[in-house]
Amino acid sequence: MNIPQSGKKRVVIIGGGFAGLQVAKNLDDRYFQIVMVDRNNYHTFQPLLYQVATAGLEPDSIAYPLRKLFKGSKDFYFRMAEVEEVKTEENILQTNIGDVEYDYLVVATGATTNFFGNKELEANAMTMKSVSEALDLRSLILQNFEKALLKSAVEEQDALMSITIVGAGPTGVELSGALAELKKHVLPHDYPDLNINRMQVYLVEMADKVLPPMSEHASRKALKYLQDLGVEVILGEAVKEYKNDKVILSSGKKLNAGMLIWAAGVKGNLLNGLKEESVKKGRYQVDRFHLIEGEKNVFAIGDIAYMETAEFPMGLPMVAPVANQSGVNLAKNLNKSQKNKTTKEFTYKDKGAMATVGRNRAVADLNNLKFGGLAAWLVWMFVHLLTLVGFRNRLVTFFNWSYNYFNFDRGIRLIIRKYEKKNLEPRS
Amino acid sequence: MNIPQSGKKRVVIIGGGFAGLQVAKNLDDRYFQIVMVDRNNYHTFQPLLYQVATAGLEPDSIAYPLRKLFKGSKDFYFRMAEVEEVKTEENILQTNIGDVEYDYLVVATGATTNFFGNKELEANAMTMKSVSEALDLRSLILQNFEKALLKSAVEEQDALMSITIVGAGPTGVELSGALAELKKHVLPHDYPDLNINRMQVYLVEMADKVLPPMSEHASRKALKYLQDLGVEVILGEAVKEYKNDKVILSSGKKLNAGMLIWAAGVKGNLLNGLKEESVKKGRYQVDRFHLIEGEKNVFAIGDIAYMETAEFPMGLPMVAPVANQSGVNLAKNLNKSQKNKTTKEFTYKDKGAMATVGRNRAVADLNNLKFGGLAAWLVWMFVHLLTLVGFRNRLVTFFNWSYNYFNFDRGIRLIIRKYEKKNLEPRS
Repeated sequence: MNIPQSGKKRVVIIGGGFAGLQVAKNLDDRYFQIVMVDRNNYHTFQPLLYQVATAGLEPDSIAYPLRKLFKGSKDFYFRMAEVEEVKTEENILQTNIGDVEYDYLVVATGATTNFFGNKELEANAMTMKSVSEALDLRSLILQNFEKALLKSAVEEQDALMSITIVGAGPTGVELSGALAELKKHVLPHDYPDLNINRMQVYLVEMADKVLPPMSEHASRKALKYLQDLGVEVILGEAVKEYKNDKVILSSGKKLNAGMLIWAAGVKGNLLNGLKEESVKKGRYQVDRFHLIEGEKNVFAIGDIAYMETAEFPMGLPMVAPVANQSGVNLAKNLNKSQKNKTTKEFTYKDKGAMATVGRNRAVADLNNLKFGGLAAWLVWMFVHLLTLVGFRNRLVTFFNWSYNYFNFDRGIRLIIRKYEKKNLEPRS
Repeated sequence: MNIPQSGKKRVVIIGGGFAGLQVAKNLDDRYFQIVMVDRNNYHTFQPLLYQVATAGLEPDSIAYPLRKLFKGSKDFYFRMAEVEEVKTEENILQTNIGDVEYDYLVVATGATTNFFGNKELEANAMTMKSVSEALDLRSLILQNFEKALLKSAVEEQDALMSITIVGAGPTGVELSGALAELKKHVLPHDYPDLNINRMQVYLVEMADKVLPPMSEHASRKALKYLQDLGVEVILGEAVKEYKNDKVILSSGKKLNAGMLIWAAGVKGNLLNGLKEESVKKGRYQVDRFHLIEGEKNVFAIGDIAYMETAEFPMGLPMVAPVANQSGVNLAKNLNKSQKNKTTKEFTYKDKGAMATVGRNRAVADLNNLKFGGLAAWLVWMFVHLLTLVGFRNRLVTFFNWSYNYFNFDRGIRLIIRKYEKKNLEPRS
């Protein structure tokens, strides 16, 4: 990989997400050389991907060049690469651009969409875990409307216009809300020859409420907001099949869907070469110091890590605050180990959760405070603007949000690269 | 195409560029139904494509959704489609989404890159005539730098970092200037382990001056500005070959080039089905009323049209103002024909030309005024902001320009979709 030896211990970090960034930022460069590897040359602010998908933001609002982030850092090396295998015996990471030796390896590879083995859904559903997937979503939404115009049968138009979202976690809820707003404010102007009232946005959830991990209060309020916006929420049902623009639910009920968006599950991005025994629930089991079970210098943090604590006996949640906090803790511990200071067990400080449901409405569970409506929406915006990486991105996002808010608009309805729908696999 | 008959005459416009937009905007909807066909769902402001390629702007600054532009228009229909053939006998336009009948057909298909038959260059050079091509350019510039990092031989690094631009018209000049600024202000911070001083930006031009169609004063000044920025301008030479990251010029001289950008020629986007005799210099020969030679209801405007006038005996130039003005004139003539008023011959009002060469510097030939430097740069910015389509795009562009100017930055160095380099065809 053409990285010089600096005499310091080398920490190789796989992944420039929330967790990886915090490690790199907090390591002491007097003791460590840092090598960060990511398949992209940018950090992705995943909580706002859904706004890229719904034509509200361009990628430059939520993606931040990793090299720019670490500009001026001493003894820091970034390499854009795909990881192939870890050789733990030799302390070597193999990638498509060559090998790199490490003293410490930090696995911060995050999560990917989980279809729980349903190959047919995997082949035909849209996902939203990366910027290019979000852009594909944006293209397909618009392409389907262009296609609907050409149909003379109303049933075919309805099917192409309608969208089914599976999974009512924060992603599913926020995406449904944004789509409902597109339906209300944007699409009727763009497609006056279509009857947009016949467009349906379905949100399907297996549990008996939306936002299952949040409070009862938040679930109830979010459900009401979604219904007010015209989203048809279907609870206690799973998706069994998706074929010919129709979704078939476990009860046998059929829904129209020119597009099926899968937001119903995630799984860790596992690596080749680490012991299988260290995997629990599709993630790497780590101790309270982020060390992977059975390893001595390989850590895992963020969504890919599975850590049990007294408060979270089923494992810490796969959310951004856990990633951020564990990144900081791991870096500090590594620094301490070089100064022969005692390292610290990780404790997650849960500050709560939020989700927005369209214009002026959100729900928030913050510590003991549970609230909704405009107040929650303002807090949601404030927190997201504040946590966005980079001053420029905050400015661009703020500008776009203001423009969209005052104009009831989503300005970026551009099909830059057409999305080619995959073909349905024949069912046996 | 599922377009209802409204009883009015139907004008079908192929292309949503400058020319097509003006026709659609100026036709009187009391007399005409308008159908616009374009392969994209947006208008592209081509003069700023080079800023998308050099990480200064995102597509939403220079692309504008066509449906949004005509929102609220009566009896206007947009269809995203690829044109296949014109059947002039039957007044039918065939496309990949079906046929449409027309009373009048307006061909405003613009121009594409012209390699003058050099297949090898066509297969390996980068072009910049569309948003997706500009994004490919952006990706490849960054990918080449990522690749250079992995080379240990300095010669290989130099080749990957260097860029050769062919053609010193406004596009070539503005692009070279922008690349030189990237070299000066951005890349050294991003790639501290590379010696960016060894990066070369070459601008090759067959004529003996840059900006050949502009004044002697503008050419001289632009050349000086380019050289001050570190661009190596090579005049009176053509590119013969491009192979293994080396460009070979007509004199035999070799240049490094991890990327060859072809801005040396354009040709009209001709259609299938129109008579070959109507083609002159790769464009459709039209009379002073924009009617294609030998046709009675098929017009051509913009870059695709070839019109000779007393002032321009070699044909009007392929520039935006000609497209805009002829679009307006054609629409007005069509309106007049419905009111039995006399139609008007087209006369081009040449308001001059401009080109910017990096920060604070531009050249302008406006009527009898020839000037350069900061004044020209300010006029350039003002005119481009003003002529950008859509208020939102002007705001976003203004924001980005201000940010980039004060921070010496180009914030959008994101490789969203990797560019896969085509393979060199074996030469016979």
